Amino acid sequence: MNRLTLTLADRMVDEALSEGARQGFQPLCVAVLDAGGHLLALKRDERASLLRPQIANGKASSVLGMGFGGRELARRAEVMPAFFGALSDLAGGNMLPVPGGVLIRDDAGDIVGAIGISGDTSDNDERCALAAIAAVGLVADAGSQ
Amino acid sequence: MNRLTLTLADRMVDEALSEGARQGFQPLCVAVLDAGGHLLALKRDERASLLRPQIANGKASSVLGMGFGGRELARRAEVMPAFFGALSDLAGGNMLPVPGGVLIRDDAGDIVGAIGISGDTSDNDERCALAAIAAVGLVADAGSQ
Amino acid sequence: MNRLTLTLADRMVDEALSEGARQGFQPLCVAVLDAGGHLLALKRDERASLLRPQIANGKASSVLGMGFGGRELARRAEVMPAFFGALSDLAGGNMLPVPGGVLIRDDAGDIVGAIGISGDTSDNDERCALAAIAAVGLVADAGSQ
Amino acid sequence: MNRLTLTLADRMVDEALSEGARQGFQPLCVAVLDAGGHLLALKRDERASLLRPQIANGKASSVLGMGFGGRELARRAEVMPAFFGALSDLAGGNMLPVPGGVLIRDDAGDIVGAIGISGDTSDNDERCALAAIAAVGLVADAGSQ
Repeated sequence: MNRLTLTLADRMVDEALSEGARQGFQPLCVAVLDAGGHLLALKRDERASLLRPQIANGKASSVLGMGFGGRELARRAEVMPAFFGALSDLAGGNMLPVPGGVLIRDDAGDIVGAIGISGDTSDNDERCALAAIAAVGLVADAGSQ
Repeated sequence: MNRLTLTLADRMVDEALSEGARQGFQPLCVAVLDAGGHLLALKRDERASLLRPQIANGKASSVLGMGFGGRELARRAEVMPAFFGALSDLAGGNMLPVPGGVLIRDDAGDIVGAIGISGDTSDNDERCALAAIAAVGLVADAGSQ
Repeated sequence: MNRLTLTLADRMVDEALSEGARQGFQPLCVAVLDAGGHLLALKRDERASLLRPQIANGKASSVLGMGFGGRELARRAEVMPAFFGALSDLAGGNMLPVPGGVLIRDDAGDIVGAIGISGDTSDNDERCALAAIAAVGLVADAGSQ
Repeated sequence: MNRLTLTLADRMVDEALSEGARQGFQPLCVAVLDAGGHLLALKRDERASLLRPQIANGKASSVLGMGFGGRELARRAEVMPAFFGALSDLAGGNMLPVPGGVLIRDDAGDIVGAIGISGDTSDNDERCALAAIAAVGLVADAGSQ
């Protein structure tokens, strides 16, 4: 298992913010966590609203907690809304079953961390996450079918 | 009432993990609680995702909290979703009305503890719980009708 | 009042980490909050221990919460330990009366944000905070007498 | 960085319990966490009291949170009691500055996890932790000077 470095996490955050600016998306907040769910880097556009850090961190924490990308979490939450409500309580609120939380895997398929983005639509948030992970040569697992 | 020993709890955890491996299930986390709802043994496959210990513990805690197996909790939660939402708050998140939490009874029918499993589908989690309890000669109460 | 931008916050975080590396300090975590107490940027050296993000954020949050730098908070906590114990509960744990939390002021003396650093001794943490704020031409208020 | 496996964690828990039995110590609870602070294995002697799982888990979590063994945490808490009270609030109670929490390092010195033990005196708890880590050929960091 490789350990994600701050250098790499910081580059991913910057790549995600650049992609958002390039696409003209709303102001974003981007968080990158290590494989244990602990923050390595987080940046919030000063124009992004106040809860964005918690949402970005929560999206990344959710996919690490369950082991699926946010798109798969969203699919499951649609089928089992009550269970995901209960999971949210269990996780102290850190369970956001929505695109924009993406697992980061290495070449061997091992999870090395996660990225969570909030600020625009979930689909646009996720697009920036995918761009960021691709830019550093790691493998994104967004939970797409 | 017989008291569940660590030796027996540990054997159940190992039996559940073996059943999961035999069936080719996803990496699991298994928790066994005593009749007072306190952990005796918990093991998490190192490949299982981060929230699995809380979910396994929460499933076992839920069935002890209400006195029904997880399958019966699921049935009731479907009929009374608001009540189970409130219960979840009351229990600090430890209310997961879903298969995979199973009461452990002795020959006299007394509750001696509970097992909770998380990692694969709820049905597969429960299958491992049933195998574990049968392997040590105790009686499973999964809340099946 | 000027609003702290992400660009400026990010530069301060990097300056603090550089100062730490230059001095051979332990691996650090650095957080910069805006005047409303919301994260703009946080980076944790991948070798820094797990609670460092909460401590760095908590130090910055504390000085904004009370309107004094961490050194003044430490002085007051020594005189009024019970009050600071109660404040800690009130603030949900975000009250760390210790050097390493520094208010950031503009030329007019207005508070524009705060920086919190954790990883080495409190004195060394604070040294990196002062270097970071000076590097971007803002005014540090560490609560020194 | 090596990842701690369940197999190794389980062996450490058993070695710690065996050492306790050999020495005639009080009934123990032993927890082994991975480098991210997540449970791999926990066992509680059925005669150990009810809060032991939280204490064992909390001791292990504390040393990972701060990056020092429990003996060094105890030394610091004696000098800075108010700060450790505040840290306890910040960590949601998971800050127990006392021997019996021991970092587990690999040959390269990297932290691969932590063990926490509770049930007898802190010194005896720690003795079992050291025996467990030595038995699997890893390196203990108890925070001794």
